[in-house]
Amino acid sequence: MPSRPNRQILLAARPEGRLEERHFRSTVGTVGDPGPGQLLCRTILLSIDPANRAWMHGPTYRDQVEAGQVMSGFTLAEVVGQNGAGIPNGAIVACEAGWQEYAVLRADRVRPIEVRGMLTHHASVLGVTGLTAYFGLLSIGRPTKGETVVVSAAAGATGNVVGQLARIHGARVVGITGSDDKNRLLERDLAFDATVNHRSATLRKDLAARCPRGIDVYFDNVGGRVLETVLPLMNLHGRVVCCGAVSQYDTANPAPGPGGVPGLLVVKRLRMEGFIVLDLVAEWPEAEAKLAAWVASGELKVLEDVVDGLDAAPAALIGLLAGDNVGKRLVRVAADPK
Amino acid sequence: MPSRPNRQILLAARPEGRLEERHFRSTVGTVGDPGPGQLLCRTILLSIDPANRAWMHGPTYRDQVEAGQVMSGFTLAEVVGQNGAGIPNGAIVACEAGWQEYAVLRADRVRPIEVRGMLTHHASVLGVTGLTAYFGLLSIGRPTKGETVVVSAAAGATGNVVGQLARIHGARVVGITGSDDKNRLLERDLAFDATVNHRSATLRKDLAARCPRGIDVYFDNVGGRVLETVLPLMNLHGRVVCCGAVSQYDTANPAPGPGGVPGLLVVKRLRMEGFIVLDLVAEWPEAEAKLAAWVASGELKVLEDVVDGLDAAPAALIGLLAGDNVGKRLVRVAADPK
Repeated sequence: MPSRPNRQILLAARPEGRLEERHFRSTVGTVGDPGPGQLLCRTILLSIDPANRAWMHGPTYRDQVEAGQVMSGFTLAEVVGQNGAGIPNGAIVACEAGWQEYAVLRADRVRPIEVRGMLTHHASVLGVTGLTAYFGLLSIGRPTKGETVVVSAAAGATGNVVGQLARIHGARVVGITGSDDKNRLLERDLAFDATVNHRSATLRKDLAARCPRGIDVYFDNVGGRVLETVLPLMNLHGRVVCCGAVSQYDTANPAPGPGGVPGLLVVKRLRMEGFIVLDLVAEWPEAEAKLAAWVASGELKVLEDVVDGLDAAPAALIGLLAGDNVGKRLVRVAADPK
Repeated sequence: MPSRPNRQILLAARPEGRLEERHFRSTVGTVGDPGPGQLLCRTILLSIDPANRAWMHGPTYRDQVEAGQVMSGFTLAEVVGQNGAGIPNGAIVACEAGWQEYAVLRADRVRPIEVRGMLTHHASVLGVTGLTAYFGLLSIGRPTKGETVVVSAAAGATGNVVGQLARIHGARVVGITGSDDKNRLLERDLAFDATVNHRSATLRKDLAARCPRGIDVYFDNVGGRVLETVLPLMNLHGRVVCCGAVSQYDTANPAPGPGGVPGLLVVKRLRMEGFIVLDLVAEWPEAEAKLAAWVASGELKVLEDVVDGLDAAPAALIGLLAGDNVGKRLVRVAADPK
């Protein structure tokens, strides 16, 4: 197999302040043949996630993305070549091919997918963001019937699933977004009990009014001012699921920490707990099966926001950080294999 | 029984900034006879706690202390009169008689004490502060053998017990105080593995050097800058026990929250959890028995700092907030009953 041309998007420069298109550069490289134990993967869908931006700040739970490298990202890919790797051509795999058409990856770094229904679902509700909602809400937040669950970035890939799972488990669900349009959609299409716009000048009052019995679980995707506003409204023994801090990713000047920490944690006996879904890979199949069943029954609606073509990826990420997505944002790099 | 004179210390005015002696006023009131189901309690020992200052800020897990009222405080008292209350004269009870010689209390608001060894121990290692150390460390921090436990206010009533319990459970213990003298005492007399002075200009570096394998459990009594310094040194899946925020109590301008919240909680999968030992009263007898056994065996040394006479209470609290105590600070109001 001759070496093929491979369209790629590089991180041209690490952003100091806000991420802009000039921080990326499109190029055409080549991709070689897979070595022993390796696969040649063709990207079909590229996942656009707030964490992509956090990876540019420095090492986190993974290496930092450096200038000059192909931008990192989670992908669904088709295996189109292999070298004794035990995964056949035509298989669909979840992997981190990054922002490029092809990647050579070690077979032990990809996860074969048994496709259920639409392929996109494996990058949204059955993918990392859906699993993040599942484990964060059910293993850390642990809402019980009748409790009030608040979720921020509620129209986002993880947030919308959190809200729906909380509703499925009998909780009262209040979503926070930065847009009245998103809020209407959450209440109308996803049966959220109430919503609040975090751009409101009376955020605290609005939230208190929508949560007359206080807040038992707060699923925090944003950090910053919203977290600080929620803490005083938490009930005794409340739980704060620390999933992300998207309000802090795209800036050179992160906000100070929330003023209620640690005082309110003591007085209200709160638990704040962070987690990374990659730690729980062994439990993914069971979670995926449950999520798929709720999708099949119609209890869990799938909210996706698919953008076309690899070259659209930079704008897709920049827009995501500004909150212009509704549901899971994906870039379609190639058509589904037949 | 005629009404008796009753020396009392009132909170004369709620402090706006630092607490000073002028915020208190000594007076002689009277105490009447106990009504049905009530006890007349004579204060023997008065517990001086950082929380006393926090109670002046506003309602917390209890009503706020108002100007003009007898100052609130935990006490050990002797029952010297009762009215069908089912607790005999001469009994020793743990109660909240406040800063006064006598109090009439409902029998269901006191806890009879089975005195083991020295009475003062029931106000220190076997009292609320010792139990706070026990439950906070063992139920929330849950250190395992070989892990590194860091505790702040480490020479304080709770901190010194935390450090010793961590050592008894096989952890490596690093104490933080604001005094080199206290640190020497902790290392020499209580077998702390290392100590750090939080007034050092190189606190973060000092702490990193004393914790070469990172920090698994941080028992936080102080909040503020020390908490912010500790967070980046926490190991993956570390636990922060939120017990108090004494650095923030005696000020009108609390510090902003720690900058690592919530970002570091996510990246490091940390759990921060507050608790109040009063929630766990049902488990106190078992904890008290274990603590008493460690005291009896000499594994757990008792660090007390007893000040003489009710009138010394204001200065005792002001000094405690400035960190001048070593171990549990008590005010002896009356001699032990024979």
